[in-house]
Amino acid sequence: MLCLQCETNPTWINVANAHHDLILIDHAHCEKKAAAFGLSMINRYPGHLKLVHEMVDLVKEEIEHFELVVRELESRGITLTRDTGNDYVKELHTHMAHNEPDRMLDLLIVGAFIEARSCERFSILAEHCDREDLRTLYRSLLASEAGHYRMYTDIAREYFPADRVKQRLKEFGAIEAAIIRARTDKPTMHG
Amino acid sequence: MLCLQCETNPTWINVANAHHDLILIDHAHCEKKAAAFGLSMINRYPGHLKLVHEMVDLVKEEIEHFELVVRELESRGITLTRDTGNDYVKELHTHMAHNEPDRMLDLLIVGAFIEARSCERFSILAEHCDREDLRTLYRSLLASEAGHYRMYTDIAREYFPADRVKQRLKEFGAIEAAIIRARTDKPTMHG
Repeated sequence: MLCLQCETNPTWINVANAHHDLILIDHAHCEKKAAAFGLSMINRYPGHLKLVHEMVDLVKEEIEHFELVVRELESRGITLTRDTGNDYVKELHTHMAHNEPDRMLDLLIVGAFIEARSCERFSILAEHCDREDLRTLYRSLLASEAGHYRMYTDIAREYFPADRVKQRLKEFGAIEAAIIRARTDKPTMHG
Repeated sequence: MLCLQCETNPTWINVANAHHDLILIDHAHCEKKAAAFGLSMINRYPGHLKLVHEMVDLVKEEIEHFELVVRELESRGITLTRDTGNDYVKELHTHMAHNEPDRMLDLLIVGAFIEARSCERFSILAEHCDREDLRTLYRSLLASEAGHYRMYTDIAREYFPADRVKQRLKEFGAIEAAIIRARTDKPTMHG
């Protein structure tokens, strides 16, 4: 349903369960970066009204989730450490077209995959996290991540032919799956 | 009250009144950049809890204002064109310290001055804009800009001695006033 061409390695959850704090910190940074990505899309495509309005809604939601995760960290006495970057996202970016309008389509497709993979990871955490309070938290965030995946693909279809969007989703699906398969389990949302 | 050491050139309002559309577009970009600045401060100083919470509130408010101005543009049939940058802000940045913790103080002080100058410009527009509907819009935004100035100086005083904050506000006040005095009137919020 989410266009992902492979599932997360079943051993990832063990690493995640061994580092609840690191997963939460990485998650906070993911929300912050998703908000920043929304602003950068507005900056790149200010004249694309549907895109601008959807990105405004995205930024609002992502910053609210960031706040929610920060409060969760605070209540557990965990300090939000510096963002160490996300090599999964960096690898996806190396496969993007450089010229417009292909670049715009790829930015939307990559946005969709990041949200789709987050959604898959949330569903794993919501079910298999070994702490009930965290399962509840992840469950509450699952639906909106799925909504964000949908939003990116909807915007793509607004500005590009449906066939082309479908084709690029398939191509990036293969790229994304190869990146995920090559990873060793890490205690991050896309690790 | 706002620590500004000079007033805007009285002829600026004439240029602003001749280009309502450009002022609105520039204003939309200012709100977007203020939100992006808030995220970048979280990114730089994730462990500073008061700063993080204040910046979350700032991002929320700035993105809502951006949306409000974008809807205003839409209702007037004006397209949001690309952001052409803000040389007032760029000039302020050249005067900032490079090393921490001085850099953090200067980022907060510069944030305060940008908001203070916006606030002063809003008050001019709220009174002297030659269109009543726009006067109402600017009046509605005035109070929150003043609040943002206050927020930046409050955060500064949370992490730095009050005397040092006062001193740096004075120094940057002189720098900012020199930048403003050297400008020829332009149809932008800080032009």
